[in-house]
Amino acid sequence: MAKVLVPVADGSEEIETTCITDTLTRCGCQVTVASVMPGKLQVKMSRGINVVADCAIEDCKGTEWDAIALPGGMPGAEHLRDCAALTELLKDQSGKGKVTAAVCASPAVVFGTHGLLPEKSTCYPKFKDVVGAGWQDAQAVMDGHIITSQGPGTSIQFALKIGEKLCGKDKAVEVAKGMLVDYVV
Amino acid sequence: MAKVLVPVADGSEEIETTCITDTLTRCGCQVTVASVMPGKLQVKMSRGINVVADCAIEDCKGTEWDAIALPGGMPGAEHLRDCAALTELLKDQSGKGKVTAAVCASPAVVFGTHGLLPEKSTCYPKFKDVVGAGWQDAQAVMDGHIITSQGPGTSIQFALKIGEKLCGKDKAVEVAKGMLVDYVV
Ligand SMILES: [Cu+]
Repeated sequence: MAKVLVPVADGSEEIETTCITDTLTRCGCQVTVASVMPGKLQVKMSRGINVVADCAIEDCKGTEWDAIALPGGMPGAEHLRDCAALTELLKDQSGKGKVTAAVCASPAVVFGTHGLLPEKSTCYPKFKDVVGAGWQDAQAVMDGHIITSQGPGTSIQFALKIGEKLCGKDKAVEVAKGMLVDYVV
Repeated sequence: MAKVLVPVADGSEEIETTCITDTLTRCGCQVTVASVMPGKLQVKMSRGINVVADCAIEDCKGTEWDAIALPGGMPGAEHLRDCAALTELLKDQSGKGKVTAAVCASPAVVFGTHGLLPEKSTCYPKFKDVVGAGWQDAQAVMDGHIITSQGPGTSIQFALKIGEKLCGKDKAVEVAKGMLVDYVV
């Protein structure tokens, strides 16, 4: 059972967050939602819904994660960027060639800041200059072990792409059907 | 500012829930998430993420709601169906011809049980026999003041349809653009 870490913060995008956690749980992954907000597990998402994380990000060291997947949303992505414990986890994960993934603001704001972007990637179009010449206009982009996506409307496809990488294409296609979407990327 | 009530329970579908709350907040609505679980505001959604409601459903009487919108998910829809306070709110709302909306299992399990379905509606295909001859194969269906939809993959369109009804088509189209989706229904 693949282990997936989903860090969240005040201001994380809730559609993006649940598309990741829900879709990957349906794929059979064990999903852990971790708060990067110092001293609190409950976060207020970008459009107001309150989520309680399973643990604090500091508790996530020492576990082998099959994927770390970041929702976007502002200022959520900035909180993710500024979290030292998460930055260490991401650098370690990416250095080992294991899956890192980010959507919306986070490819630019988190991966861009910490030198974790691959050659080809995507993000919310407003941030494309931060990503630079490798920016692709696609719902989801996989370059090696790094998967990126654009926003709320692309987040199910994004999560299915992570699901395919971890659990195989047949599983991703099956889960997509149950959610009444076509898996297209 | 339109007031929207979103009842939730243990086992409510989290993509459907956040698509409703996020999209309608972006439309400018004031969204209240209310728990129907006796004595607790924190609910565990269908694929494991924990959400804290803004209030209990009993606190929602006496407010004029512009819309009441139900996520699906099982057994979430059954908890919504079995909640007397919510049933009273829904019957009162529908009796006044004000917007009621439901997605996935909820059109069949909640609206079907309480005689609140219009002539034409939709739901998760597995439940179409409960809805009967008026079932439409569409992402979202509006019949009078009642809006229904099929599942996680149709929930942004569902929420945009509610947004159009409450805030106008221009607003729905603008919000869709910001979420990187085409508003098609
Ligand atoms: Cu975003």
